[in-house]
Amino acid sequence: MSLQVSGERFTATYLLDCAADEARERALDICFEQTVEFPSDLTRDEIKEKIVGQIVELQEIDPHTHRAVISFPVEAAGDELTQLLNVLFGNISIKPGIKLERIGLPPSLLSLYKGPRFGRQGLRAALGIPSRPMLCTALKPMGYSTQQLADLCYQFALGGIDIIKDDHGLADQTFSPFEERVRTCAEAVQKANAKTGYKSIYMSNISAPYDELIERANIAKELGAGGLLIAPGLVGFDSMRRIADDDSIVLPIMSHPALLGSFTTTSNNGVSHYALYGQIARLAGADATIFPNWGGRFAFSKEECISIVAGTRDEMGIIKAIFPTPGGGMTMERVPEMLEVFGRDVIFLMGGGLHRGKDLVSSSATFREIVEKI
Amino acid sequence: MSLQVSGERFTATYLLDCAADEARERALDICFEQTVEFPSDLTRDEIKEKIVGQIVELQEIDPHTHRAVISFPVEAAGDELTQLLNVLFGNISIKPGIKLERIGLPPSLLSLYKGPRFGRQGLRAALGIPSRPMLCTALKPMGYSTQQLADLCYQFALGGIDIIKDDHGLADQTFSPFEERVRTCAEAVQKANAKTGYKSIYMSNISAPYDELIERANIAKELGAGGLLIAPGLVGFDSMRRIADDDSIVLPIMSHPALLGSFTTTSNNGVSHYALYGQIARLAGADATIFPNWGGRFAFSKEECISIVAGTRDEMGIIKAIFPTPGGGMTMERVPEMLEVFGRDVIFLMGGGLHRGKDLVSSSATFREIVEKI
Repeated sequence: MSLQVSGERFTATYLLDCAADEARERALDICFEQTVEFPSDLTRDEIKEKIVGQIVELQEIDPHTHRAVISFPVEAAGDELTQLLNVLFGNISIKPGIKLERIGLPPSLLSLYKGPRFGRQGLRAALGIPSRPMLCTALKPMGYSTQQLADLCYQFALGGIDIIKDDHGLADQTFSPFEERVRTCAEAVQKANAKTGYKSIYMSNISAPYDELIERANIAKELGAGGLLIAPGLVGFDSMRRIADDDSIVLPIMSHPALLGSFTTTSNNGVSHYALYGQIARLAGADATIFPNWGGRFAFSKEECISIVAGTRDEMGIIKAIFPTPGGGMTMERVPEMLEVFGRDVIFLMGGGLHRGKDLVSSSATFREIVEKI
Repeated sequence: MSLQVSGERFTATYLLDCAADEARERALDICFEQTVEFPSDLTRDEIKEKIVGQIVELQEIDPHTHRAVISFPVEAAGDELTQLLNVLFGNISIKPGIKLERIGLPPSLLSLYKGPRFGRQGLRAALGIPSRPMLCTALKPMGYSTQQLADLCYQFALGGIDIIKDDHGLADQTFSPFEERVRTCAEAVQKANAKTGYKSIYMSNISAPYDELIERANIAKELGAGGLLIAPGLVGFDSMRRIADDDSIVLPIMSHPALLGSFTTTSNNGVSHYALYGQIARLAGADATIFPNWGGRFAFSKEECISIVAGTRDEMGIIKAIFPTPGGGMTMERVPEMLEVFGRDVIFLMGGGLHRGKDLVSSSATFREIVEKI
């Protein structure tokens, strides 16, 4: 019985940290490692031809860096995000000197994924913000009671912050249990909206144990949260996709980078900023992708941030463009230079910075004024 | 209303890649980043005292490496593995120069986790192997039909391989759909067992999309699989815990390192081999933990492998010791030196190597003979 494959293939582009005379061997190693995981001389011809990865392109970037474009049969990834990620970077994540730079999925594979439900346009429509950058802040510090957090919500919303999200460290702790927090914070934002006429939303962190994930999404929806924060590094990328695809939840999703950082901290291994925070976050259903802004307290460079923006909007068939959401030590002074890099399709995420002014309402209002003038 | 905490704290030990004059500041940064994520000068005293991490110890390893032991209140992690991982390494995964070396959980926190259901003793009892090392192989290559894979199963089992597992790249692809594979492979192993009197098991890979995970575990159980393979890097650590804790599944779990590699490829960031493949795999319910053997086609060192063994058995309260399962390019010639490092409480995982002999049955039988003489 012969092996049936469609002949359709997807591609992964890798940066290889090696000299010219090793590049082809390293690329070939990926072709086998990510599919049959079997010695070449023991692999039958039919399997080599139809299943094993194929080197589509091999290019020298500099004497110690080579770019390999490798194609895999769509059948290797099946119709599962878990298995797609496995083929793209599963075993080779353990090998130094390999960076997944970008992915290229054909329509037949892309059609298996719905991607972001809202995307840039959908989120703008949901929040009634046709064209300006959006404003976001995080509820902190951990340890505050629900009432204290709800007070923050109220003040941020009065000042006109569009998205008031749980800090990613707020889960279901004793000092602010999940359901109580969602109810109280969503109410506080609605109360402020009634006064201001704004359409601010409270966004609830549902990064949770397996059995709690969907339940928390439903509770958040029911109690009036306007969006969901999910850290795919904590719950798995496919868990985020699951929530995004749920037709009874239907809330915008913001992806948080917790526990994903090790993919990008070295140039010698991992997944590129472009693919991780751009392409993969999109494929997994995020409508907005949080990452550390350059020049903040994390180490991303301006160029890396620019590459993420490209990853959020580069053509991916039916998969919508999403909002880059740079954060991490942001201040109002940085709005102009950030605007140059990110353009108007951006969510500015300012946490601690908003607490530096006279009071939260006026800091928030100032932040909004700056952005409304853009 | 004052903030209530028990006063119980857990610890995380980090290696910091920095000079002596920066070490304290870097450690303090972790204390804040992993809890309140808020500027120190804006954080109220009560929160600082009860919620923010505290430096328990700061020690110079060499002029450019410092070890910091930091304690966090158990309440910060709540009763959720996702949030525990978040506090241990969520945001700081994005910062170069920080490696999580080990975790130290007090009984109150450990008691929230069941850990491995079987552990070393339980797995030995289940497989009827009182004291020798266990033998494991993987079904490959991807692209084989179910019947071809089942034929492999039969031969491996005839030869006496204890655990015959799906390669981690076998999911639910067209060439071997999940349910069909489980049924046929489990039957093949049982047929061989009836002939040999051995108690070999077929172990099924259930690394799957969110909605499929529990279903596949149940199908595997129902159709006679003797264990489950799970890649927590693909599905999330808490998903593995969920399966381990399920009282209607009750099958041994082997953890696979796919997509986890980037945590350990650089000394300058990530999670240590000890904590990742040892402590965290145990806490998340694995009974055996696969990792690349030293000297194989991956880059782990002998010392790193030794540290994993320590992580699989060092005291962790009620959390059982588990089996180190070194694999990746293993050959029979290596058994003696591996035995010296791993001792008898080890699962030898040999994939391609078994295909090098005269035939699979005799290769497997030779492998078993070698190990039975130990």
